[in-house]
Amino acid sequence: MTEGKETDKKGAAAAESGEKSKGQMRKEAKKAEKAAKRAADKEQKGGQQQAETDGPDISQGKYGVQEMNQSKVKNVVDIINVKDLKVKDAGNKVWIRGRLHTSRAKGKQCFFVIRDQQETVQCLAFVNERISKQMIKFISHISKESIVDVEAEIVKADEKIESCSQQNIELHVHQVWVVSASAPQLPLLIEDAARKVTDEEEGNFARVNQDTRLDNRILDLRTPANQAIFRLEAGVCSLFRDVLTKQGFVEIHTPKIISAASEGGANVFKVSYFKGSAYLAQSPQLYKQMAIAADFGKVFTVGGVFRAEDSNTHRHLTEFVGLDMEMAFKFHYHEVVDTIGNMFTQIFKGLRDKFQGEIATVNTQYPSEPFKFLDPPLRLEFPEAVSMLREAGVEMGDEDDLSTPAEKLLGRLVKAKYDTDFFILDKFPLAVRPFYTMPDPNNQKYSNSYDMFMRGEEILSGAQRIHDPNFLTERAKLHGVELNTIAAYIDSFRYGCPPHAGGGIGMERVTMLYLGLDNIRNNMDLITYVDILADTPP
Amino acid sequence: MTEGKETDKKGAAAAESGEKSKGQMRKEAKKAEKAAKRAADKEQKGGQQQAETDGPDISQGKYGVQEMNQSKVKNVVDIINVKDLKVKDAGNKVWIRGRLHTSRAKGKQCFFVIRDQQETVQCLAFVNERISKQMIKFISHISKESIVDVEAEIVKADEKIESCSQQNIELHVHQVWVVSASAPQLPLLIEDAARKVTDEEEGNFARVNQDTRLDNRILDLRTPANQAIFRLEAGVCSLFRDVLTKQGFVEIHTPKIISAASEGGANVFKVSYFKGSAYLAQSPQLYKQMAIAADFGKVFTVGGVFRAEDSNTHRHLTEFVGLDMEMAFKFHYHEVVDTIGNMFTQIFKGLRDKFQGEIATVNTQYPSEPFKFLDPPLRLEFPEAVSMLREAGVEMGDEDDLSTPAEKLLGRLVKAKYDTDFFILDKFPLAVRPFYTMPDPNNQKYSNSYDMFMRGEEILSGAQRIHDPNFLTERAKLHGVELNTIAAYIDSFRYGCPPHAGGGIGMERVTMLYLGLDNIRNNMDLITYVDILADTPP
Repeated sequence: MTEGKETDKKGAAAAESGEKSKGQMRKEAKKAEKAAKRAADKEQKGGQQQAETDGPDISQGKYGVQEMNQSKVKNVVDIINVKDLKVKDAGNKVWIRGRLHTSRAKGKQCFFVIRDQQETVQCLAFVNERISKQMIKFISHISKESIVDVEAEIVKADEKIESCSQQNIELHVHQVWVVSASAPQLPLLIEDAARKVTDEEEGNFARVNQDTRLDNRILDLRTPANQAIFRLEAGVCSLFRDVLTKQGFVEIHTPKIISAASEGGANVFKVSYFKGSAYLAQSPQLYKQMAIAADFGKVFTVGGVFRAEDSNTHRHLTEFVGLDMEMAFKFHYHEVVDTIGNMFTQIFKGLRDKFQGEIATVNTQYPSEPFKFLDPPLRLEFPEAVSMLREAGVEMGDEDDLSTPAEKLLGRLVKAKYDTDFFILDKFPLAVRPFYTMPDPNNQKYSNSYDMFMRGEEILSGAQRIHDPNFLTERAKLHGVELNTIAAYIDSFRYGCPPHAGGGIGMERVTMLYLGLDNIRNNMDLITYVDILADTPP
Repeated sequence: MTEGKETDKKGAAAAESGEKSKGQMRKEAKKAEKAAKRAADKEQKGGQQQAETDGPDISQGKYGVQEMNQSKVKNVVDIINVKDLKVKDAGNKVWIRGRLHTSRAKGKQCFFVIRDQQETVQCLAFVNERISKQMIKFISHISKESIVDVEAEIVKADEKIESCSQQNIELHVHQVWVVSASAPQLPLLIEDAARKVTDEEEGNFARVNQDTRLDNRILDLRTPANQAIFRLEAGVCSLFRDVLTKQGFVEIHTPKIISAASEGGANVFKVSYFKGSAYLAQSPQLYKQMAIAADFGKVFTVGGVFRAEDSNTHRHLTEFVGLDMEMAFKFHYHEVVDTIGNMFTQIFKGLRDKFQGEIATVNTQYPSEPFKFLDPPLRLEFPEAVSMLREAGVEMGDEDDLSTPAEKLLGRLVKAKYDTDFFILDKFPLAVRPFYTMPDPNNQKYSNSYDMFMRGEEILSGAQRIHDPNFLTERAKLHGVELNTIAAYIDSFRYGCPPHAGGGIGMERVTMLYLGLDNIRNNMDLITYVDILADTPP
């Protein structure tokens, strides 16, 4: 569109940009015309030979393929977003830019839908005093997913257009220019990839399988649901940070390349580090604690966490985004538990209130029950969970950890009894927690540690940490941890450290479970795009 | 403090917590008393033997070492922050918690300073009807940097206390309890580490050298300047995100473990990935671009960036926090340049207005000129910079890249001519930019690319990227890039991609240069703490 024939658009461009003389503009336009023509010729393939039979092209200069944008001119025309088209502006001519979502030529007319992120609008071009047959042909040959600029008049639709997000508007086309052409063969269609997921097969609609999606992630990410999921992920991060910042937390950034495995040594990625080797941090926890020993009081960090675990389940990834926080407390680690619990309440409320549209978009493709939570959140103690599970027929010892099926069952039992999809499980058995976990002073079988759950899946694990270097040493020895591998960690508590607790959250899991995507196999991959774009060997 | 003798404090605890019966409380108190006494005995060393000559201890139960906090009781008393102590509350008794910053016993009294993050207050204990000689001795023996709880009366100071941030208040001590004891031997004193940096030696004050600081990072981070620098870093990140989010940018998270080196292969860390190998991402750029091709329109990401470069200069680190953004534009990449330029203006204004206190704190230790900027920012084109440098005597060709000394000189020349510490340098020679950079359509020697500078150092590098897969292939071949290593990258533009541009910022460098810390050798290390805590082999 920035280039083409001397048309009314071009005139507007010259007037608006005010940067070039008419002579310059004409010269550039001419050069561009040539290029566009060449491209249009190529695009229309055999079309041009037929031109003579169709008569002279009255639409010349109103359509074509733009020269590749190299930033030759500025602000040629105003382009508005599809979401900003209004019925009240009917009669106005506007420019929009978007993808050719679908198109269908029917004799002397062509219907097509332009998609702009999550929004769609129907466009209509028909042969008339300014639209030639050649132009209709050109439009009908544009490959789907190409980015096009369309100049058109806003027209109130005669009847509701169910297939578009703009249901009361139709655009009557004046100009169509291809900004960036898509390859003509698409491995998947966005409309197929966006189709509602149901248990039953509905009609003969094409479905896109998971492998095709992942192999063509750039296309798959263009579906309304994926556009929304990414915005929700951004929302989770932003709510996490805002809620904590308002309470005096300081954001820190912890090292990812570290000298020793931060959590024992299993499942750690090794890095060649100049002449030696290093590891990828499995958790920012030890660094958060060092920040507490260094007097930052309350800290959080958002960043990559690396685990060399098989990621063929929907629960784990080798790389995910950790939302971590740590906080000094005065008397009792419940000061921290309450802070985290309240933070989740704020995140759930923020998502519900600020992302209604995105949640609805995801639900259109992936129907699910709305996420339920209590304010303040429910806090159970471990023995209570064990009782509930035993009542439901699960055989387990007092100090056994919860298996994944037991966690899920517990989630259902809690939902039935308390009507909440979120709860805190406090006081885990000491035996199932890491060496740095503070034992419960009142019962040596338990510890000052907690997990938090969404729809029966653990999304946070945390604890009061041992802040006394001597006791920490004693516990490490009991756990058989090599003291020399954690010397720097223990030493960081030698110059006084306040009692503190914290926890780490998997960002993708929170988003997934909030949206109720847990029952969809491999759905985790839908959200992260990390593994996929990375194209890492399995 | 949570444990001790049955005192008025204990009484308060029982009343406030309301959770335990008197009997329980007494039982626990007794148990705790024993523990505290054992600890106090140990702490006071020979002190107790002298007790008989000092007479009966009237302060018993008003001082000592607390049992390690295991969260036995809740909210025993209200503890207020040192910064919230007010002269108008003179006469009130309060509890504070902080570090023993300095202490000095003088006969029957002991002066000590309590530090709570960046705030300090003077405390005074003197022998009277409720404070025993034994208690004064105990206080004077507490090791510096220990965390203590102090109950005291707020008293208006007779004269200004220059050495503390609370200059008009003194605390007259009633109780002192050690919460977490520091090792008695400190490798550095916070007051030495916090001393003003000047060119001349001033008096005989002890100075702390860089190695000692880095070896004892937990202590060094407790200095007011470092406490402030970390808060400013958090401020830079938060301003970056907020400014962009308000303009419709979506936060994304890009993979750190990738299958191929994202920028050519030099200076990349290799990771053992199960049975194969992978690499650490040197830049999120390719992934940001994929997000643009996937219709996110405007994206940003904050995260670790890894470069296997020698980090023995203050300019580079093997790991730093990247603030990256990418944006589709309609006509001209200056739409993006203007967005980034304005974003910096907002960051500079935000730091200036919201972090005055932190900036002043840093300047107290590291004096520097305030950071100057223009609104809108200055944009120069490369040939103009070359002219300025040549006028100043630098010999360079039209298409030479800027050397580091030339950049610094240019920064000084621009400052002298335009009175700004920030500017945009546009239109870099094509030859010095990566293969994916869009050439200038008007002059094939130049490109649609730009760097941005603070105080003569580059803090952002960016460009319009080539969004056409065929032209990208052509440029990659010209640069000798192996096409099979970038196949996924090129393929991501095959289904249509809008013209786009972006840039990447080094977060630590922005903070450092905003604060004018550039002239301090190794100061980068002061800010990051990444390399240091990581304790990575050199």
